[in-house]
Amino acid sequence: MKLGSLREGRDGRLVVVSSDLSRATAVPDVAPTLQAALDDWEACARRLRDVAAKLESGADGRAFDLDTRDLAAPLPRAYQWLDGSAYLHHVELARRARGAELPPELRSDPLMYQGGSDVLLGPRDPLPPAPDSDGLDFEAEIAVITDDVPRGTAASEAARHVVLLTLVNDVSLRGLIPAELAKGFGFLVGKPPSALAPVAVTPDELGDAWDGARVHLPLRVQRGAELFGAPEAGEDMHFGFPELIAHAARTRRLGAGTLIGSGTVSNRDRTRGSACIVERRMLETLEHGAPRTPFLRPGERVRIEMLDREGRSVFGAIEQEVAPG
Amino acid sequence: MKLGSLREGRDGRLVVVSSDLSRATAVPDVAPTLQAALDDWEACARRLRDVAAKLESGADGRAFDLDTRDLAAPLPRAYQWLDGSAYLHHVELARRARGAELPPELRSDPLMYQGGSDVLLGPRDPLPPAPDSDGLDFEAEIAVITDDVPRGTAASEAARHVVLLTLVNDVSLRGLIPAELAKGFGFLVGKPPSALAPVAVTPDELGDAWDGARVHLPLRVQRGAELFGAPEAGEDMHFGFPELIAHAARTRRLGAGTLIGSGTVSNRDRTRGSACIVERRMLETLEHGAPRTPFLRPGERVRIEMLDREGRSVFGAIEQEVAPG
Repeated sequence: MKLGSLREGRDGRLVVVSSDLSRATAVPDVAPTLQAALDDWEACARRLRDVAAKLESGADGRAFDLDTRDLAAPLPRAYQWLDGSAYLHHVELARRARGAELPPELRSDPLMYQGGSDVLLGPRDPLPPAPDSDGLDFEAEIAVITDDVPRGTAASEAARHVVLLTLVNDVSLRGLIPAELAKGFGFLVGKPPSALAPVAVTPDELGDAWDGARVHLPLRVQRGAELFGAPEAGEDMHFGFPELIAHAARTRRLGAGTLIGSGTVSNRDRTRGSACIVERRMLETLEHGAPRTPFLRPGERVRIEMLDREGRSVFGAIEQEVAPG
Repeated sequence: MKLGSLREGRDGRLVVVSSDLSRATAVPDVAPTLQAALDDWEACARRLRDVAAKLESGADGRAFDLDTRDLAAPLPRAYQWLDGSAYLHHVELARRARGAELPPELRSDPLMYQGGSDVLLGPRDPLPPAPDSDGLDFEAEIAVITDDVPRGTAASEAARHVVLLTLVNDVSLRGLIPAELAKGFGFLVGKPPSALAPVAVTPDELGDAWDGARVHLPLRVQRGAELFGAPEAGEDMHFGFPELIAHAARTRRLGAGTLIGSGTVSNRDRTRGSACIVERRMLETLEHGAPRTPFLRPGERVRIEMLDREGRSVFGAIEQEVAPG
């Protein structure tokens, strides 16, 4: 089942979307918004699945042709966005680029930060421009959306709390982050709103590409006409989503509709490219002593998409242009 | 005007509360929840003020006697909780206790972290117990609730975005925080859900105790029968709320219903006591070489309240007991 939110008001209007993303149907009798469905997920999911089955079979008379450009983020605002850094290769590179080692405890204790979720950009929303010195960057990630997760949920129990998955462009202002992190309280001005993919999907939509912890498909990232990277999301993901959920829930319960991100997808195999600019710049620094690839400038476009093994877009594409300065 | 949320569902049921907190009236014709009112604040506030005027004059036939124990947090969940550290005395003490100086840039660039807001405890909700080594602590703070704040709003324009104020118990697990902050990504497991006061109030309820930036009243903090502290919230608050809002909005807009906290209220005048345990422990460490005051244990009670100059409770009291271990 694929779910999206048509642009409407602050929370969008929930629609069930066909597997090929071409058709949709509104479900006001089930839930007005995706958050409302997540708030009563067990009951709503059953009814939404019935609608989805009808939509696939062509038996839904209310279905309409969908232009994915009409979609906001599946959750145009959320009560929680927690972003992990599960691909330790990316973290290692960041440390090496500043001459440090990866602290060994980061192999057992996930890095994760509390991000802003009061505004989540739609897949086609422009990226606000930033001065060159702010270092505007994208980060292509996978995120899960959970139902209510009790405090102290163990990783072995956490997979069942993954009710939906989507893609994220975790927008970063690299020029502001070092000074902000040096203050010791994490990210704030360095992380303007993230964008989500057109739809969020239930795990079964991924077939055996979802093993309950990781998504075994490449995440394609384009910058303009260039394929910037296509790392395999199932490789080098040191912590699976259940471990990330368990970490987040260690001392508190998580409310329904919590988004938990994987962190920038990153493979040790360099031929796969990178899912953010700063990683390529770190590789350039290690190789040439200085970065060569510039950060995003007004007018540039970023496209993030995941295709299944048959080449079909799973979540639709995040396709954002940097607005004029 | 004072607003509260009766315990009901995930978001409570919005009520207008009388200035003396003894009576309330539901307003389903205006907005079902406080978040819904904040989403359309200008229109709703006018109508809520009419209800409040009737309630004060005794002309509201639908009013009922209120037991503040029936109130959840004014926002039982919120889309954003940003916590500043505006009382630099507290920050200075924290640094001195570990032998460091306050970096001078923290006098011009506010410390602020993105906190969890998917669950906000009600004023009487128990505090989940924590092992002694986790160091369960309270932090008494003032918070503002904003309407929509555009990206790049200057401090000089930010005061008008303060639509409500409330109190916060920013619960902290001191034993977990040093290792967590050392990871570099801010707070997560060290900050379980915060609690809010019974009501949120419009700035005019504070009279001239609100100067558009600070609240000039003492914040009373009791631990069991002991008055733990009563620092003056208007003193030693280095950054006013408009500066905190401007900092938060530097690179992104803030959605309606954003909560922004002052950080632990803290005065240089030590006779006022402290608004959190760790501050007293830092003072003890500086004076005696080691802390003497233990963190919270199961069965202990914390009470946080602000009285106006006539001795009336402005927000009602946060009164929490640590649940049995």
